[in-house]
Amino acid sequence: MKLITFDEGRVGRLELEEETVIELDVPSTREYFERGGQVSETGERLRLADVKLRAPIRPKKFFHTAGNFVAHHEELEAVNWSHPVHKGIVFFQNVDAIIGPDDPIVYPSQLTNEMDYELELAVVIGKSGKFFGADEAEDYIAGFTVFNDISARDIQRREMESGVFSFSKGIDTFCPIGPWIVTADELPDYQNLAMELRVNGEVRQTGNTAEMRVTIPQLIAYHSPQTYSAGDLLTTGTVSGVAAIQKNPFDFYLQPGDVVEAEVKGVGVLRNPIISWEDAYGEPAPAKADF
Amino acid sequence: MKLITFDEGRVGRLELEEETVIELDVPSTREYFERGGQVSETGERLRLADVKLRAPIRPKKFFHTAGNFVAHHEELEAVNWSHPVHKGIVFFQNVDAIIGPDDPIVYPSQLTNEMDYELELAVVIGKSGKFFGADEAEDYIAGFTVFNDISARDIQRREMESGVFSFSKGIDTFCPIGPWIVTADELPDYQNLAMELRVNGEVRQTGNTAEMRVTIPQLIAYHSPQTYSAGDLLTTGTVSGVAAIQKNPFDFYLQPGDVVEAEVKGVGVLRNPIISWEDAYGEPAPAKADF
Repeated sequence: MKLITFDEGRVGRLELEEETVIELDVPSTREYFERGGQVSETGERLRLADVKLRAPIRPKKFFHTAGNFVAHHEELEAVNWSHPVHKGIVFFQNVDAIIGPDDPIVYPSQLTNEMDYELELAVVIGKSGKFFGADEAEDYIAGFTVFNDISARDIQRREMESGVFSFSKGIDTFCPIGPWIVTADELPDYQNLAMELRVNGEVRQTGNTAEMRVTIPQLIAYHSPQTYSAGDLLTTGTVSGVAAIQKNPFDFYLQPGDVVEAEVKGVGVLRNPIISWEDAYGEPAPAKADF
Repeated sequence: MKLITFDEGRVGRLELEEETVIELDVPSTREYFERGGQVSETGERLRLADVKLRAPIRPKKFFHTAGNFVAHHEELEAVNWSHPVHKGIVFFQNVDAIIGPDDPIVYPSQLTNEMDYELELAVVIGKSGKFFGADEAEDYIAGFTVFNDISARDIQRREMESGVFSFSKGIDTFCPIGPWIVTADELPDYQNLAMELRVNGEVRQTGNTAEMRVTIPQLIAYHSPQTYSAGDLLTTGTVSGVAAIQKNPFDFYLQPGDVVEAEVKGVGVLRNPIISWEDAYGEPAPAKADF
């Protein structure tokens, strides 16, 4: 099933070929998972063209893992990133920075001039649980969506000097997810999905979930001492080709006017435009709050 | 006002001298702040001795800032911590690891043998907002509570090699807060509060919020590009005296059987026992999920 959130937060399943939305009788996709998917239809059917897709879920927690893909790991080593990105590292993404498909990413020129992209597959955790092994972890996989981990590299570089990075990836609008959730029953081959990210139609990142150094069940089990709630998201790391590792990164960083498409085959395409602060708010960017 | 959550999530205000709880007609303290405190009483009054205090709030986001106190900053430099802890660094705390006053911190012997404490003052953000300056920040301060940032130093050391620390502080039960929220009107001198942490009655950490290198309004403004929701928590960093910086840290790390009291004068005392995995779950600790 393709599970969507639309308009003012209504929930539905999408029949993509018929371009039809069948509304579901549940207040949120998070609650859909809390109820174990035991949800009926309202009877209302809408045309896809008549609805506005929203971020498919508002999770309680958004586990951001990194360092899982071999090629991205090697490209970071090649450019002397200040730290080795070990497999299995984790931090929490800012749930208030989440936006949906076609929502604009606002370029905060007062904070960064190195806005980068990172294509990732995100896993929807289907039920609550903690402290379990990889053998049980597959039972927690309820679905998948696409995540574009927008990152201010100049801020990240500064943060990493102190042994964290969070602000650089948690700025308002920096967390696009979507376009929908594909439920796990439709994606048994989740460990073999082609990945591609394009900027203005030009391919920037390519990879495949088969290239992960750890499996998704291993990742889920590894982080289970932090406790899962139904509907939590867990991302699985990005693939090679980010702007920061290019020879001329400033030719690759995102700019207002760009459109970025993050695709995981079998899941979908998450498309977002970058817009300037002025286009977003009708006024110049504020001064940076520093101390 | 001392705002509490009690029993199965009921909300009240505490008249401490009369040892009386006056129930408020709101489903959660988070919603209390979403409504701007416009909440009536239910008419029910209970004796403090007859209620079980819970974590005073379940925030949507828990901003964890660090490196703000001069003395803790200097003690970390003295022990050659792997990274300089710059002022203003931030990451998100695990909201599912939150526990309340007198709740046990479970010692996960399969994961760590370096469990440390960190006394912090936590600020309750009263309303939603983003991208504002320090001059506006005071309007966002709605109250204060105490936070004990329980940290697995062995895991933290490994994480910091990759430029993050999150898992080490986000393990189940590692995030005690409480015992209540003191609203901002009762604490105008929030930048001059004595702080003390005791283990089994022995003083381990002392400090004062006057020793912060940045003011609380500066901190709040600085992190505002990440967006606040009403009821979010923001911690303000710990003071000197953590176990990790002692000459013989293993004489100071927390052990099952210990009781830790985290106190900020004018706010309250947050007391939590440490218990073994076996005492918590009635069975030996599980194997570590590694890969």
